[in-house]
This record gives sequence, structure tokens and C-alpha cells, in this order.
Amino acid sequence: MNIEVCFTPDEYQSKDYEKFTAVVIDVLRATTSIATAFSNGCQQIVPVEQVEQAFQTKEQLYPEAILAGERKGLLISGFNLGNSPLEYARDTVQDKTIIMTTTNGTVALNKAASAQKVYAAAFVNAKAVCFKLIAEGRPVVILCAGTDGRFSMEDALCAGLIADRLKDHYHLSDKALAVQAMYEAYKSNLVARVAQSSHALYLAELGFAEDVKLCLQQDVLDVAPVFANGILTI
Amino acid sequence: MNIEVCFTPDEYQSKDYEKFTAVVIDVLRATTSIATAFSNGCQQIVPVEQVEQAFQTKEQLYPEAILAGERKGLLISGFNLGNSPLEYARDTVQDKTIIMTTTNGTVALNKAASAQKVYAAAFVNAKAVCFKLIAEGRPVVILCAGTDGRFSMEDALCAGLIADRLKDHYHLSDKALAVQAMYEAYKSNLVARVAQSSHALYLAELGFAEDVKLCLQQDVLDVAPVFANGILTI
Repeated sequence: MNIEVCFTPDEYQSKDYEKFTAVVIDVLRATTSIATAFSNGCQQIVPVEQVEQAFQTKEQLYPEAILAGERKGLLISGFNLGNSPLEYARDTVQDKTIIMTTTNGTVALNKAASAQKVYAAAFVNAKAVCFKLIAEGRPVVILCAGTDGRFSMEDALCAGLIADRLKDHYHLSDKALAVQAMYEAYKSNLVARVAQSSHALYLAELGFAEDVKLCLQQDVLDVAPVFANGILTI
Repeated sequence: MNIEVCFTPDEYQSKDYEKFTAVVIDVLRATTSIATAFSNGCQQIVPVEQVEQAFQTKEQLYPEAILAGERKGLLISGFNLGNSPLEYARDTVQDKTIIMTTTNGTVALNKAASAQKVYAAAFVNAKAVCFKLIAEGRPVVILCAGTDGRFSMEDALCAGLIADRLKDHYHLSDKALAVQAMYEAYKSNLVARVAQSSHALYLAELGFAEDVKLCLQQDVLDVAPVFANGILTI
């Protein structure tokens, strides 16, 4: 059984992965915030690609929903929450529906929608997702959300962590071997090395350096969010 | 000054790299064989994309030329040499013109043709190419030839070796940092780990396992082939 990796949503060809479980990763910060929200009791998250869709979805389907997400890393006008995991506290999200739109993560989730099963993963919940993958035993494609269509280091590193944990159960493709090697080289000094990445530098400029550290904590949240029929739940 | 990396020729957008020096890598085996040929006294190599073009180029321009290259890793009917560096011995190539067509490497060279300068690099001549890059001081884009349009581990690792050697002189992009990390993780055990890659496994099936080892020797050839006006020379 194989593990494949796509470095960007453009590399993901739906027809190739219909029998796979897809694992969507957007470490900075969408899938980290999604895992945090579920860990804090959120009921469901509806990822949408456009800001206008978010407002329409709230109006038509979930009038009580929280609007969350970012454009260029920042809070969207008229929204309740940005994309920092710190904002997804229990007081704010417990039992709530969240409608979320982010630049990379929600696009990647929708791209992977036709796979057999779709998980949202990040460093914070990698162990919980790996547990499900091994138990379910399907071939796995890891879809890195990337940054504006480009390769992003932190997503590739999280893919590497997952490949490393699955390596005894799966055949690793060249890209899976590559990300596993990256993870091996970086794991002893993850925070300092990810801080050099282009997206981490951008977030630090916006004042979100603390978020980067939070997003690199491993296995602190025991949730494996599943995306099905347009909705994330656990 | 930046180092960028393209994992496949499709990622290479010529207009982005007009002011760059391009380094084309096809470790298994085109750029290794190119470096070997020059090291053994070859006069010039004309890379062409199609088999038919190779025959026409010989007939019209270089009647004395050696025809070399591969399709699916094997010798092309009517050609003199395949793509194994072992075939490019001094007795065979000294003072000769070689017309070469390979599945990945010659395509990548032609894709990079509009850069300020284009080098052909592999593990065997990495040091010689790095010396030129540092001396010339332009931004660098490393174009991995890949395998049939897909990511290939051995090319990414060679890009990582080059990024590692240039890191004190350049700003590394996320992909350059990624390949450098891969190289760090693999360097102590390069042959065994590259042997797991899809292209190495394929070559071993064809009986070319020895080539893979040869292609992973570092810095044994002091040549930096330059591609200009459709011709490789040193």
C-alpha cells in the first residue's frame, strides 16, 4: 500500500486518488485551527472557498454560525474570528458551527473531497490522524495546502512526520521519502528551522510569531477531523 | 541573492528566471553521462528532444557525430551509445561531437535555455559547478529534470547538495531549504537510500544497478558543462 504526497493542490488529480484516504495539511494555520476548534468542543466546520459564500452559507443555512478565516493572514471584514488557533478557545467555539474560508486550507479540503475519506491534519493532531490511517488501512495521499499555490516547508514537514509514522505499514513514494528525510533532518530543531520558511516569516511580520510555535506542537490534540459532504466533524 | 528549486520542468517558468543562472540536474543519468563525456575529452554535446531530430542533426550538421541517449532507459535503435556513464569512455568520446536525446535531461536543458547561463550538474561534478556559481554571483535556479514529469528523489538530493554548499552565499527558498534538509538526512547513507527511489529501482531491473552507484559519486569530475546556443561545451 502506498503513501503519495502532493506538494500543492495543483498536483492533486482527483481521479488518481478515488480509492485513497486524503490527508489535508495546512499547518500555518487552517488545519491547526480546525483541530483546535474540535478539541474545544466545536460541533462542525463548513469550509468554503470564497468570502461571499461564507456570508451566504451563514444566511441561508446556519444563521447562528461563527464566521472565521483569513485573507493575506488577516481577519476578514465582517467576520468573527481570524485564523489564529488562539482564537478558537472553548468559550468561543463550544457547540458552535463555524463557517471558515482561508486562502490555502479550505481550497485544499474541497480539492480532496472525492477521496474515500478526508482528514484534516497538522502537527497538533498528527498522532490521532495516523492512528485512524493505520486502523483503516487504505492507501494514503497527503495533500499539502501550500502557500498561494507554492510549496510550503511546514506542510511538507508535517507530511514527513506522518510518512515517518506510517513507514512500517506502507510503501513510501519518492516524495514521501523526501518529506520523511526533511522531517528527520529538522525534527530536533523544528521551531527554529520552520521560522526561516517564507510563510512563517510573513506571519511573524504580521505579529503572529507565537502562532508559529503553537502550530509546531506535536500530538497535543486527540482529534481527527473528517471532511464529508462539505462539512468537517469529528 | 536567491536559490530557487524546480522539482520538475513543468514548474520552470522561463520568464521568472531570465536573470538567473540555471543548473539542470538529471543524476540518473543524463547529466552524469554529460559530465563523464567532457571529462573524457568530448568536444561538444548537442542535446535534442526527439529521436528523429537526432538523426536529422547528424545528417545535416555533424555527419561524424556519435548518436547517444535512451528511451525507457534503453539504447535507441540506430544509436551508438545508451545513457550509461560507463559507455562514455575516453576511447569512445575524445574529440567527438555527441548528439544526445534522453527522456528527461535534454528536455530540461532546452527548457532552461533562456536563463543567463545554463550548467549541467550531477553529483559527480557538483563541486566544479558550485565553484562557478559562487564566482559568477548570479541568482540560481536549480531545475531538476525529474522522471517523466514527476519529482525524482535523486535529482532533489543533488539540488540539496548544491544548496548546502551555496548556503553561506545565498538566501535559500523553502524548496531549497527542503532539498538541503533531505540531503542532510541522506548524506551518510546516500547509495542505500537512493536505491529505494522509483527510478533507481527501475534501472536496477534493467541491469543498471552499478550505474546508480557511479552516479552518486561526489566531486570526482572537474568539469562544469555550459549549455549555450543549443550546444554543451566546457
